[in-house]
Amino acid sequence: MELYLGYTAALMGTVCWLPQAWKAWASRDTSGLSLSANLMFLLTVGLWFCYGIMVGDWPIIIANFCAILIVVSIVLAKLRYK
Amino acid sequence: MELYLGYTAALMGTVCWLPQAWKAWASRDTSGLSLSANLMFLLTVGLWFCYGIMVGDWPIIIANFCAILIVVSIVLAKLRYK
Repeated sequence: MELYLGYTAALMGTVCWLPQAWKAWASRDTSGLSLSANLMFLLTVGLWFCYGIMVGDWPIIIANFCAILIVVSIVLAKLRYK
Repeated sequence: MELYLGYTAALMGTVCWLPQAWKAWASRDTSGLSLSANLMFLLTVGLWFCYGIMVGDWPIIIANFCAILIVVSIVLAKLRYK
C-alpha cells in the first residue's frame, strides 16, 4: 500500500509540470514564473537524479530524468520569453 | 553521503517554491502560472505527506507539510489574481 502511494506520488510529481511547460511555450506568457524557483527546482530534481544513481534506485532515476527534461524546457521558455 | 544528498534534495524541494509564492503575491501576475500543474503538484506533495505518515518518516512528513503550505499559497494567489 505504501509502495503504491509512493509510486503514484513519484509519477504525479513527474508529470505535473507538463501542463506548465506546455502553457509556457504555447502562451509565451512567462512573466509570472519565478526563474529562481524553477532553477532551484531544476537543482532539486538534479540532486534526486544523482541520489537515485548513487543508491541504484531505477524509479527515482527515471522519474527525475523525465522531470529534468520538463523543468529544463520551462526554464528555457522563461529565458526566451521574458 | 547518499543520506546528505537526499536530505539536501528534500530541503531544496521544499524551499524552492518560496520565491514563486512570493512573486505571485507580490506581483499579482499569475497569468503564466498553470493552475492544473500547481493543483497536481499540490496533490503530489499531499500524497508524499500521507506516504510519510504511513511509513513514519519525519523528514518526509515535515518537508511535505511545509511544501503543502507553500503550494496552497501559490494556488490561492492564482485563483485570486487570475
